[in-house]
Amino acid sequence: MIEKAIQNLRLIREQNPLIHNITNDVTMDFIANGLLAIGASPVMSHATEELEEMIGLASAIVINIGTLDHKGVETYSKAASIANRLGKPIVLDPVGAGATSYRTQVASQLLSTHKISIVRGNASEILALSGDLASTKGVDSTMGTQQALNAGIDLAHQRDLCVVISGKEDAVITKDCQYIFDYGHAIMSRVVGMGCVLTSVLAAFHAIDNDALTAAASGVILYGMAGEMAAEKSKVEGPGSFKTAFLDALYSLNEEEIMKRYRHGQTVGYTARDIP
Amino acid sequence: MIEKAIQNLRLIREQNPLIHNITNDVTMDFIANGLLAIGASPVMSHATEELEEMIGLASAIVINIGTLDHKGVETYSKAASIANRLGKPIVLDPVGAGATSYRTQVASQLLSTHKISIVRGNASEILALSGDLASTKGVDSTMGTQQALNAGIDLAHQRDLCVVISGKEDAVITKDCQYIFDYGHAIMSRVVGMGCVLTSVLAAFHAIDNDALTAAASGVILYGMAGEMAAEKSKVEGPGSFKTAFLDALYSLNEEEIMKRYRHGQTVGYTARDIP
Amino acid sequence: MIEKAIQNLRLIREQNPLIHNITNDVTMDFIANGLLAIGASPVMSHATEELEEMIGLASAIVINIGTLDHKGVETYSKAASIANRLGKPIVLDPVGAGATSYRTQVASQLLSTHKISIVRGNASEILALSGDLASTKGVDSTMGTQQALNAGIDLAHQRDLCVVISGKEDAVITKDCQYIFDYGHAIMSRVVGMGCVLTSVLAAFHAIDNDALTAAASGVILYGMAGEMAAEKSKVEGPGSFKTAFLDALYSLNEEEIMKRYRHGQTVGYTARDIP
Repeated sequence: MIEKAIQNLRLIREQNPLIHNITNDVTMDFIANGLLAIGASPVMSHATEELEEMIGLASAIVINIGTLDHKGVETYSKAASIANRLGKPIVLDPVGAGATSYRTQVASQLLSTHKISIVRGNASEILALSGDLASTKGVDSTMGTQQALNAGIDLAHQRDLCVVISGKEDAVITKDCQYIFDYGHAIMSRVVGMGCVLTSVLAAFHAIDNDALTAAASGVILYGMAGEMAAEKSKVEGPGSFKTAFLDALYSLNEEEIMKRYRHGQTVGYTARDIP
Repeated sequence: MIEKAIQNLRLIREQNPLIHNITNDVTMDFIANGLLAIGASPVMSHATEELEEMIGLASAIVINIGTLDHKGVETYSKAASIANRLGKPIVLDPVGAGATSYRTQVASQLLSTHKISIVRGNASEILALSGDLASTKGVDSTMGTQQALNAGIDLAHQRDLCVVISGKEDAVITKDCQYIFDYGHAIMSRVVGMGCVLTSVLAAFHAIDNDALTAAASGVILYGMAGEMAAEKSKVEGPGSFKTAFLDALYSLNEEEIMKRYRHGQTVGYTARDIP
Repeated sequence: MIEKAIQNLRLIREQNPLIHNITNDVTMDFIANGLLAIGASPVMSHATEELEEMIGLASAIVINIGTLDHKGVETYSKAASIANRLGKPIVLDPVGAGATSYRTQVASQLLSTHKISIVRGNASEILALSGDLASTKGVDSTMGTQQALNAGIDLAHQRDLCVVISGKEDAVITKDCQYIFDYGHAIMSRVVGMGCVLTSVLAAFHAIDNDALTAAASGVILYGMAGEMAAEKSKVEGPGSFKTAFLDALYSLNEEEIMKRYRHGQTVGYTARDIP
């Protein structure tokens, strides 16, 4: 798996895939900078007049419902239809699903109506989407990744997609395989948008790797490693210096750093493919 | 007062109160990161479909009119009505009041129609809201805090709320008490959104302290101290490194730092309560 | 020219001209911080209710179509009409012109209907606006400045305005003069919004210097120098630390630094005025 991750990173940096983000107003700048730092080419646009052309140019699209409203929800749906028709993979970030019924409903509707390749959420969000009862506090999860594992497996089966649950531990789940990785650092939870940036980074990996499972696992592993590098560099003085160091780490991450930090992931339950 | 400030900070970090921000497009990311750094849990959402649920989950709400428009103004009003009905405190940031008549009118309308707990502005904005003649240059104040003191006292009496005037000096005013604090550093005026973040931080303090006066005074004092810490740490090389260090300071601020930096505030005129 | 640049920087810092930005959602925070760092006073507002008043207060306006939509396009047009009527200079950033036909059309329409003083784009965008065939990948240019030079000269003649093409090299073009400067650093292309901030900084220079050519050349030169300072300071560790150092550099740029870094620009073809 780690060889695949290294290869995928190289492909992103060689091909600079264009990632079209229909995303929230809060973290767009961080998302765009994260994509550019790792080597992808970000576009953020919500104009319906250019959706067809922009998605045509893009290698993958991201739908992030962080600051949804009536107009935005129409755009998500239109963009997803175009992307499905053009065969461009969609990565979904169901921000705040479970926090309000509106968010749960909008994200569920996208999953049931369109072909989504990867959905990335925290434990609360994945629990909400799988239909399991869950209450979440705002947009931050109060539950751990392990608590949402069965919900993630259910969701992967129901929708035949790759589910990524991120948190202290990260799970990458398809109907055939479930892996858990424990890269990263606790300070990541104190920076707004770390989850959003991960979602868009997963889209960059999926843009150059058709296999959603290996794309998502590659992205999750390298993203967590960048978090560790940044925590060391910034000496965990706080979220300001960590965020700065994190963008630097996405940019400077290389094979040597990756091999140094590599630890085997954990295989959970039955797994048809031997990946990590 | 300083013991109260320390206690309030501890409560924020223990309870992580959810602060719902209906705010401007420019500084949302900084506001959210500021809240997360100090220990609160930020949500930024403007969808009317979920206002009722989201405000129900929140411990306090912020209305910041920085990038107002027709649709936004309707949302402010709807959110304020819900918050009043649910008994959630509202903190208002009347960005640019006095700069254009539209802004003055929107902010004044909110103050006259709804129960606002704290309003935080610069001197020009507070002068404009109290009805005193004032012209302001864009969204930055050209006047000092002392020049707006009487306007702040008038406004506190008119609306029975807590007025915070921030600038080189910060005033915290209710109809019973007026205090002036001089924490902070000049470089704070060169970073966009320092006022907006303060407004939302005051909401975090008010979320765990029902007394608007002690909540606001706690927030103002600790925010200024974080500014001093960041100015020292970044050696005032510029607004980029200051902003990074400031988020770190909000995160790492502790009792030892607070006691080291504590200086008595100044009591102005008649004061019914002996606070600072 | 370098004396003029130094003088213009001093004027910005003395007069703090108010720059009204009708701009995109992604980079607004960086634009506002960039303007504040160099000494200007930023306002970001799109409310049609206050356009007349806000433009009346401003010394120059910026229209940046980065996240355009139907409603935004109406606002651009209305703002440009007001600015023309009030005699306030307009600087246009045609983000993504050439990437989609919608963007090319919106930017061309603004250029043909209103008096624009300066247009700043990358090579692809300028090629698209001059009517030369060009395909661009998302919002990033895949072509060099030199390849768009003739297109820039055509555009300057067609619309009688100042064209700035930014990239590895920067060209400043009017119908009478064409100059190329090679300040800056490659890492600038890895930070989202470096072009947007330059556009608004050019508006700050034009606000205090009526001559669009010397204003634009001053801005381009000093902006590139700030990029060099930041690259040295941050040791090019990555886009995170570079961006932080860049805002510091805009703030701390002074005559000594400027004189130390000064290199003559290159005059291209026929030039009626001897500027650099």
